[in-house]
Amino acid sequence: MMDNRQHVAVLGAGNWGTTLAQLVASNGHRATLWTSDEGQCEEVNQQHTNARAAPGLVLASSIRASSDVSEAIAGSELILVAIPSPGFRDVCRLAAAGLQPEQLLIHGTKGLEAGTHRRMSEILLEETCIRQLGVLAGPNIAAEIMRGKPAGTVIASRFPRVTEAGRRALASARFRIFTGNDVLGVELCGALKNVVAIAAGIADELSVGDNAKAFLVTRGMSELMRLSFAMGADPMTLAGLAGIGDLMVTCGSPLSRNHRLGVAIARGETLARAVASLGMVAEGVHTSLSARSLAREYDVDMPMFERVARVLHEGLEPLRALEELMHLPAGRDAPRFGAAGATGAPSRHGT
Amino acid sequence: MMDNRQHVAVLGAGNWGTTLAQLVASNGHRATLWTSDEGQCEEVNQQHTNARAAPGLVLASSIRASSDVSEAIAGSELILVAIPSPGFRDVCRLAAAGLQPEQLLIHGTKGLEAGTHRRMSEILLEETCIRQLGVLAGPNIAAEIMRGKPAGTVIASRFPRVTEAGRRALASARFRIFTGNDVLGVELCGALKNVVAIAAGIADELSVGDNAKAFLVTRGMSELMRLSFAMGADPMTLAGLAGIGDLMVTCGSPLSRNHRLGVAIARGETLARAVASLGMVAEGVHTSLSARSLAREYDVDMPMFERVARVLHEGLEPLRALEELMHLPAGRDAPRFGAAGATGAPSRHGT
Repeated sequence: MMDNRQHVAVLGAGNWGTTLAQLVASNGHRATLWTSDEGQCEEVNQQHTNARAAPGLVLASSIRASSDVSEAIAGSELILVAIPSPGFRDVCRLAAAGLQPEQLLIHGTKGLEAGTHRRMSEILLEETCIRQLGVLAGPNIAAEIMRGKPAGTVIASRFPRVTEAGRRALASARFRIFTGNDVLGVELCGALKNVVAIAAGIADELSVGDNAKAFLVTRGMSELMRLSFAMGADPMTLAGLAGIGDLMVTCGSPLSRNHRLGVAIARGETLARAVASLGMVAEGVHTSLSARSLAREYDVDMPMFERVARVLHEGLEPLRALEELMHLPAGRDAPRFGAAGATGAPSRHGT
Repeated sequence: MMDNRQHVAVLGAGNWGTTLAQLVASNGHRATLWTSDEGQCEEVNQQHTNARAAPGLVLASSIRASSDVSEAIAGSELILVAIPSPGFRDVCRLAAAGLQPEQLLIHGTKGLEAGTHRRMSEILLEETCIRQLGVLAGPNIAAEIMRGKPAGTVIASRFPRVTEAGRRALASARFRIFTGNDVLGVELCGALKNVVAIAAGIADELSVGDNAKAFLVTRGMSELMRLSFAMGADPMTLAGLAGIGDLMVTCGSPLSRNHRLGVAIARGETLARAVASLGMVAEGVHTSLSARSLAREYDVDMPMFERVARVLHEGLEPLRALEELMHLPAGRDAPRFGAAGATGAPSRHGT
């Protein structure tokens, strides 16, 4: 009898990593969940719960947790990485010695590295021997997926083997997987839209109205699209699940952490306190600074991202920021791209 | 002393027409509001209210109402039309004799003509001598604008005179006007997104979750984009205020009539009763049929629009429709367009 089961390692036992492991196990594959927290490993292995990341959820008993990353990845055909950007490089370094070049890897981190503005795929290329990699992103609130609610996502990779392995591991009637090859575009959408979500949270808390909120979000997405295009991404990626789709949940759902951070800031909380009371990483906080640097590097005008960076890091009053944004010169509506836009511009950052 | 005031006629005294007249008057221009309802005219002229369309709002006393369309448009440099699609052609015919070819016209109707699937600009070209025309659309909930809340909109026209006149008449610190020239794209976004909004209302009422709702809306917008592109529009228009922007308010706001219609249908109301209890035109109801016809004519696969048409007009169970949509084959994520996509494909329907 052939064993059709895939061996899949999931690095990171936060709510997204735990959800991915659960999806893998539900499909009958072997899921090994890595976390450096030995107590958490013990809880997963003995009680089949992960109370901190997935309160109330009973995990598949086949999920095995390990605090030894080399052990977790040994023999895995596919590695899924769900580590927030601040710890991403360290985990790559930790895992590097155990990784084999034939292993396939998909990350699901929607952030850029603070300071370097590196995308997660770039960090993987810098720190590991992995080349066949991809990224997963979309409107995927973990709490809903854990409760069995339906969702769709996109896996982008230049390697069909990667998207195919991801589909085999994760796809089901309730978790639909679409594919693409614009790794750069999906990573930028996933990371940068968190900054737009913070702006949306601020707009909601200040009760500017649905019209003005939609105006601000559109403005932000247009800036995101311009930067992505300047960096070599396909602007059409924004029309997909990682773009419009993720935007819908991130800007509107009270479950979105970046949106909640925006609400807290608009209420007058300090950034430190807002971050602390969130208890999770809100990637948009440092991504706003990365966006500012990238906007300068690629010479793209990004007034909305700039205002969010100033509100979060330089004490600009949220109300003042929104007013400034509402009163910017009104020019052309939709972004325009050359013919290269639809087919992929020359990339400095392509994966 | 030069009189800088524009003479602007506004055809239609529903909530959008009344709002436009108020914006024109607030900018110090002369606004004449046409409605066939003489009682409504009297109310506007004598009490400066329009209780049915704008409850609680005190209109600018300079707004003059007339039930004689020729009188209303005589001497107007700019004509704004805010008539729902079912009455649009009749009003064009009524106004035709009084219109002059040098007059500029902007319509703000987000619908297609039932049966013919004509856009409003096509009807204007068929029925009147007006050639210098444009379209206005965006995330513009009238009730918010009437209360002085900020908003942004787009006016698209091939004629800079038209966008300029529209800006002069309507733009203010609280009502920002962006411009474009993709009349076709803005009209299609404005009309077709109402069908997506009905689907969003159904999804909300059936509590499919934020992930699945975002998935469905993304699917719908991708279909909308494919059809628009096949018809000759610029896919980037979807990234602007008439696309993503309008989508944000239409799919999320309880004030959106198409979203409310979707909610009512998902509750099990008949279409007739849902339409009646709305008391206003929900353009998406017949636009779903137009979309189906256009999808066939242009050979575009539009499963989400098809399902909404079947739910509304052929008794398909809303829950069944959503399940079918969640289980369609999962293929490529974002729509792809040839290089022509970014610069405008050959148009059969261009204005």
